[in-house]
Amino acid sequence: MPFSFSPDDPTFIIHRGGKMEIAPTVALSSRDDLSRAYTPGVADVCLAIADDPSLANTYTWVSHAVAVVTDGSAVLGLGNIGPRAAMPVMEGKAVLFKAFAGVDAVPICLDTQDVDEIVATVTALAPSFGGINLEDISAPRCFEIERRLDAALPIPVFHDDQHGTAVVVLAALRNAARLLDRKLGDLRVVVVGAGAAGVAVTKMLIAGGVTGGDVVVCDSRGALYDGRPGLSGAKAEVAALTNAAKLDGDVTTAMRGADVLIGVSGGQIPESALAGMAGHGIVFALANPTPEVHPDVAVRYATVVATGRSDFPNQINNVLAFPGIFRGALDAGATRITEGMKVAAAEAIAGVVEANLAPDTIVPSALDPRVATAVAAAVAEAAGRDGVTR
Amino acid sequence: MPFSFSPDDPTFIIHRGGKMEIAPTVALSSRDDLSRAYTPGVADVCLAIADDPSLANTYTWVSHAVAVVTDGSAVLGLGNIGPRAAMPVMEGKAVLFKAFAGVDAVPICLDTQDVDEIVATVTALAPSFGGINLEDISAPRCFEIERRLDAALPIPVFHDDQHGTAVVVLAALRNAARLLDRKLGDLRVVVVGAGAAGVAVTKMLIAGGVTGGDVVVCDSRGALYDGRPGLSGAKAEVAALTNAAKLDGDVTTAMRGADVLIGVSGGQIPESALAGMAGHGIVFALANPTPEVHPDVAVRYATVVATGRSDFPNQINNVLAFPGIFRGALDAGATRITEGMKVAAAEAIAGVVEANLAPDTIVPSALDPRVATAVAAAVAEAAGRDGVTR
Repeated sequence: MPFSFSPDDPTFIIHRGGKMEIAPTVALSSRDDLSRAYTPGVADVCLAIADDPSLANTYTWVSHAVAVVTDGSAVLGLGNIGPRAAMPVMEGKAVLFKAFAGVDAVPICLDTQDVDEIVATVTALAPSFGGINLEDISAPRCFEIERRLDAALPIPVFHDDQHGTAVVVLAALRNAARLLDRKLGDLRVVVVGAGAAGVAVTKMLIAGGVTGGDVVVCDSRGALYDGRPGLSGAKAEVAALTNAAKLDGDVTTAMRGADVLIGVSGGQIPESALAGMAGHGIVFALANPTPEVHPDVAVRYATVVATGRSDFPNQINNVLAFPGIFRGALDAGATRITEGMKVAAAEAIAGVVEANLAPDTIVPSALDPRVATAVAAAVAEAAGRDGVTR
Repeated sequence: MPFSFSPDDPTFIIHRGGKMEIAPTVALSSRDDLSRAYTPGVADVCLAIADDPSLANTYTWVSHAVAVVTDGSAVLGLGNIGPRAAMPVMEGKAVLFKAFAGVDAVPICLDTQDVDEIVATVTALAPSFGGINLEDISAPRCFEIERRLDAALPIPVFHDDQHGTAVVVLAALRNAARLLDRKLGDLRVVVVGAGAAGVAVTKMLIAGGVTGGDVVVCDSRGALYDGRPGLSGAKAEVAALTNAAKLDGDVTTAMRGADVLIGVSGGQIPESALAGMAGHGIVFALANPTPEVHPDVAVRYATVVATGRSDFPNQINNVLAFPGIFRGALDAGATRITEGMKVAAAEAIAGVVEANLAPDTIVPSALDPRVATAVAAAVAEAAGRDGVTR
């Protein structure tokens, strides 16, 4: 993939030395400070936790620390560039966690892409953290890794590329539907892309009120339907939930008469396919940096258009979701992140701009400081409702 | 082990919420900030590193980040209290790393005490860090874990309980010998304790100029000597390096006529044994919080007395060593930490107070800000000399 490396470029300058540091929150300037923060004082704190492990949440940073874990196998749209080259993204994620939600995130880039080894490694280091944010791990391995870790660990495990994206898409679709005076349950939706994001978006939309049978998910070979030869794993699961009509055909066929197109494929969608959609539709073209269809083209066929880019209206950006979701889960002492917590996060994101809806304002700005607070409160409440708090 | 848990105690108050946080070092307040620190700008930085992995040292925090790794099996003198209860110590270590040497350390407490699993886990997460500080892992597992990680990883691996202690003991013994106008090579030394610290102290003293044959190391069964029945592993190795006279007997026997006693056992040494030492001797009783012999007793039999405690003169504290050693190793781009780097660190520590030597001033104060700087410079220079820089 072509790129430009110029040490004097402002982007490279700000990345110099990395983007984060550790800051002590205790004084260390006197002998007394040292004897409280470290030996001998610290021994009493250790023994209190040994006696009652739940005190680790009160007397260590674990209650607000999250590991951002990747194996470097699917970094942004750059592909399998490995753990060292993934670090700038993980550090970026970590600083966003802190800036938006006060969550202390540590980037952990793993030197293995073996599912068993990743599960074993994250399981081993889990006592050091209050939550695990999986990041940029390729499908289908990401599904198994998340499922096994979620089952094994007593703390939240969340693959952001799946669920962060899905939560923000649901938020955006709720507001787009409100704006167009449509009900989620009446919309015909086509999801183009059946990777990590496509699978999670589809499940999230159904959990949020879209009728499963009215969704058609397409991979590179066309529409998924229950029983399509060769389907297995996550795709087979999604096929069983969607496409009640068992439509069999390409993306253009699937889009005929659809109200909503959600592109999470990274490929291109021809303009002719958009021409076949129902009127007053919705197009989310989320591939970065090149949307599946350019927004200037999409607006000719749809009333509401969103992308993943910051230089067009309606940026569908995970940063609207993950900081507040982890903040809320940690605040509530949640042991996992449920569908209910994710739907609550989507409603909270949508709620921030609900009073000011417009075709170019269906989601808040990525910089809106109200979002993480609202999401955290909604997620914490949902955790209590779902009975997953310690 | 008895302890007092009182939430209103100043020690528990300062540990509340943990002792550290993540601080972003980049601005995140505008859309431009976001697009440089995160997507889309970060993609160019990732691709540059994918093209030339050495750029990770320039454009990520890896060049100044260290993992402080424990399995909670030998925490302070508290024993095997597990990973969660170990966290307050690891956080304490991390904040000392930052306060004294600007090193960004992340506490990693592992939910396994299996050697193979620990080696696999640390190997997997190694690309995330510029160095690995092993901490509070019980002997003899600590020897194998360090040896295997040192061989496997291209970054420094350092078990502080062994080598940090050993470096500061060597520094203290050099200054004590200077003060008493003795040569290291002429001293008869007894090391009581053959665990992680005892083994490392013995090897370090020999590397620093003490004559191996004039050292006697004792474990709970008495003096180690080459060929003692049942010896294996690290103890057998140490026995082969020491006790040329093949002295066979208890601690009191070993101490008869000795110039130096170094206690790293955690047990007690009877006053009668000290009475048998040569005159004008040196006693380092390093067990914490209860020294092997009380310093008020030791001064009756020795000219220079040191402990591990902050409330007596001559505190032999690892904090004099580990921050500067890692700072120096990271600054030099060292791939490992050699004996030469450790000896250089000891000389630098000793050098800070060389001009003001007195029986109560053989090592600098743990708070002396000159120490880490001097140690870092000496270690970086030694790394170059030893040819272990990238």
